[in-house]
Amino acid sequence: MGKLFFDISMSLDGFVAGPNPTLEEPLGERGEELHEWVTRLASWRAQHGLSGGDTGADDEVMKEITGRAGAVVMGRRMFSNGAGPWEDDPKADGWWGDDPPFRAPVFILTHHPREPVEKQGGTTYNFVTDGIESALEQARAAAGDRDVQVAGGADVVQQYLNAGLLDEFQVHVVPIFLGSGVRLFDDLGGRSDLELARVVDSPAVTHLSYRVMG
Amino acid sequence: MGKLFFDISMSLDGFVAGPNPTLEEPLGERGEELHEWVTRLASWRAQHGLSGGDTGADDEVMKEITGRAGAVVMGRRMFSNGAGPWEDDPKADGWWGDDPPFRAPVFILTHHPREPVEKQGGTTYNFVTDGIESALEQARAAAGDRDVQVAGGADVVQQYLNAGLLDEFQVHVVPIFLGSGVRLFDDLGGRSDLELARVVDSPAVTHLSYRVMG
Repeated sequence: MGKLFFDISMSLDGFVAGPNPTLEEPLGERGEELHEWVTRLASWRAQHGLSGGDTGADDEVMKEITGRAGAVVMGRRMFSNGAGPWEDDPKADGWWGDDPPFRAPVFILTHHPREPVEKQGGTTYNFVTDGIESALEQARAAAGDRDVQVAGGADVVQQYLNAGLLDEFQVHVVPIFLGSGVRLFDDLGGRSDLELARVVDSPAVTHLSYRVMG
Repeated sequence: MGKLFFDISMSLDGFVAGPNPTLEEPLGERGEELHEWVTRLASWRAQHGLSGGDTGADDEVMKEITGRAGAVVMGRRMFSNGAGPWEDDPKADGWWGDDPPFRAPVFILTHHPREPVEKQGGTTYNFVTDGIESALEQARAAAGDRDVQVAGGADVVQQYLNAGLLDEFQVHVVPIFLGSGVRLFDDLGGRSDLELARVVDSPAVTHLSYRVMG
């Protein structure tokens, strides 16, 4: 059985999105700065049909992540600013367009049932209404021996951490203060113990990998 | 002129103290775990008259910090669980005993004036009632060419960060989740830009050093 993991960029003050998200800035004020280290990379650019870009430590980390997940779990708000019921919702296609970057089966936690939706490039959206354990079970079945990624948002990561279901994770710490927004590590009542697995750093970002212990 | 810096241990979820502090556990539940990496070190043990202890990367980082500050600024709650007026307060001696670890002039932010108090080993407590800029000015005068340390707590660090007065800092990220408590980086409205200066890691703790830019 594969591992359950997440990989998320976080400001040094702990935010994965800035304050006041809008349609133009879905990651909130300055939230895009959390991902500038990614969009500069050669591997990211190649994936998006662009040449050039940075190679080096950050690019190696990104190459490990790309294609690792055999299936993806995500929260409804990460999928779409629509809330369902989906058949009546003009935002039912989500944020990610016709050729989403996941290229794997995606399991979306929602209160509203919906038939699966197939997109280009290997992404299939599946809608799960009976909770995080069911979503994980379905994702594991789809992933086979491969790993399953919790893509986000922060509230979904917290639910999997507090349920003791995550095996490992990587936080990409970006040297900025966002001041407010959405915190990645909030209300972690479960208080898992962690083991530092690896540190990779560049001037742009520090990649901290942890194993979740017991 | 020396630099203004801080060096603080923080849980991965951003806390410098756990919840529910008491006289027996002034750092709150599990808060002491944030400092276990320090009390294991050879340099810390030598400073406290003990032999043995761990050497290596963490010990080298600690040796850099020890004795760096020519003066120290701290909040009232870090000094004492007494709140003043000091002449009537049985807790006026603070948390730190007769031989405090600071070994330098300490400037304590308080609302209640008090004459300086001299302790053993070079620590003098000075009480500052007219705000963080005055405390810094007095600390700089006392430190001469040497650096000034903001010892804490988190609220005082935040005030100096938001006022744009800090030059650099080091966060010692301990691989635990405390779940709740006192956050180091909270309400940073000033949104300073940071530059990663150095990363040192061991299994016990990741030392992240930053310069505050503009």
